[in-house]
Amino acid sequence: MPKIIIHEVGLRDGLQMEKQVVPTEQKLKWINGLMNAGVDIIQVGSFVHPEKVPQMADTDKLFAELTKNKTSKTILSGLVLNEKGLDRGEKCGVEMYCMGVSASETHSKKNTGMSIAEATERIIATALQAMAAGKRVQVSVQSAFGCGFEGPVPHERVLGIVQRYLDAGLKNISLADTAGHATPDQVEKLYEAIFKLDSSVEAACHFHNTYGMGLANVCAAMKVGVQNYESSIAGLGGCPFTKVAAGNVCTEDFVHALQRMGFRKEINLMKLIDLAKDFAVFFNREMPGLVYKTNPIIVG
Amino acid sequence: MPKIIIHEVGLRDGLQMEKQVVPTEQKLKWINGLMNAGVDIIQVGSFVHPEKVPQMADTDKLFAELTKNKTSKTILSGLVLNEKGLDRGEKCGVEMYCMGVSASETHSKKNTGMSIAEATERIIATALQAMAAGKRVQVSVQSAFGCGFEGPVPHERVLGIVQRYLDAGLKNISLADTAGHATPDQVEKLYEAIFKLDSSVEAACHFHNTYGMGLANVCAAMKVGVQNYESSIAGLGGCPFTKVAAGNVCTEDFVHALQRMGFRKEINLMKLIDLAKDFAVFFNREMPGLVYKTNPIIVG
Repeated sequence: MPKIIIHEVGLRDGLQMEKQVVPTEQKLKWINGLMNAGVDIIQVGSFVHPEKVPQMADTDKLFAELTKNKTSKTILSGLVLNEKGLDRGEKCGVEMYCMGVSASETHSKKNTGMSIAEATERIIATALQAMAAGKRVQVSVQSAFGCGFEGPVPHERVLGIVQRYLDAGLKNISLADTAGHATPDQVEKLYEAIFKLDSSVEAACHFHNTYGMGLANVCAAMKVGVQNYESSIAGLGGCPFTKVAAGNVCTEDFVHALQRMGFRKEINLMKLIDLAKDFAVFFNREMPGLVYKTNPIIVG
Repeated sequence: MPKIIIHEVGLRDGLQMEKQVVPTEQKLKWINGLMNAGVDIIQVGSFVHPEKVPQMADTDKLFAELTKNKTSKTILSGLVLNEKGLDRGEKCGVEMYCMGVSASETHSKKNTGMSIAEATERIIATALQAMAAGKRVQVSVQSAFGCGFEGPVPHERVLGIVQRYLDAGLKNISLADTAGHATPDQVEKLYEAIFKLDSSVEAACHFHNTYGMGLANVCAAMKVGVQNYESSIAGLGGCPFTKVAAGNVCTEDFVHALQRMGFRKEINLMKLIDLAKDFAVFFNREMPGLVYKTNPIIVG
């Protein structure tokens, strides 16, 4: 039974959507809570320009604080958009860099101002620089399953970007369903094609639950051997640069499902549920997650 | 590619949970809307005692009204609990009878006052009487994937009830995940075991989305060849006799997913979405369905 790795992205992909700025102290509490629950990787924030996403302005500070006297085995990841982000990350102790390009020209242009080809070249250069610094690196393909602007995205285009990554020696590759368009049959086909390109790929997935298919897609990915799963506590999430935004797959709902299927029983589900409740109190609204609203089925 | 049959149960499984009594005229509008959208089967109501579930008191009237000069090909089903319900159904034009027993002793006792063995005997007798009257009959096993009171339900117990149905010549068999406990791996295993008992079973499934796994379970059922799917418009649903209640798989989210995967493109998704919006207005709250809240991806 392969180990399923959980990469919590709510603090980045979730909070960047929220208008209410979250104090650094509150973020630290949540991140420590996630580490205590036993999540494998936590995306602490994004090294985007503070004026573009004020919610991410304290990312450097968070890393500096969290990596000071760190004892937890949880890996702390940060999203970078370019070499500038990498420079910032190297100064504050990022343990894993995440970066990516979109497989949709429209999304790429809106998000980065660059074409897919330009963005791919730049991201590969940045990724290689991070690897040379001895860091873990994950590269992604955004809008890999469809685009809110362009509609269907050809698998060949996604596989072309994946091949560029592989040629550059980048093996940890995530496909992001930025607009929530993925369907389980498509998920199986696309990952199977990627494993055919290179059976040693460390495949990752990032699904949004826009149309209710988040966990169905996760199950399809598990079926074909994907090991790395990005999800958001309480179902936070979305992307301000896509047309239709909705939350990621919800971490505690995912862990609940995993434990019911016999996986990752050492993760503390009740701690995750308490955190989700805390998010609902903080934002004073019902969150998209379902398990925190009911009695979870605890697996012995 | 097998035809996927959609059995809308929101008017029964959904409305029975609602405190606000829905006028008969409103129900007729919704049922006509569902027929116009092209849903295959609609569960109009339940022949339960009107004092027990006042929301279902107009079931006879609805059937009489709907079967008068009926031109739609949509099949109208009704839930019966016993012979009395069947007598009522025969007087008002029910086209398909649904009835079932629980695989949980606690749930069976609370729901019917009978043990599983007693309930099975009684339901089989009622089902055979309905078949003798020339009607379509679907028999179900409730709490087939777990019980809110008892926890796990052994597959052998579910398969034992299914075998009793098969021995009596009842082939249209639905497994209901009354408390939302099902997981995709379990769904595959249980239906595979049923198809082994009799490959000609007309298998049906009824999932609740209590823990977010509704569509994941639906996809698992599709994978192993289940053809009949029960779902609720707007994600209405629940069972007043289980401990944890939550909505069924949402019809328009399911149809949206189906159409994205190439199935049932002739169903009018936009009409279903308009209906879901209408439910949200009528009950003056956000419904569990996701697609109606966003822009659906229309498949050409």
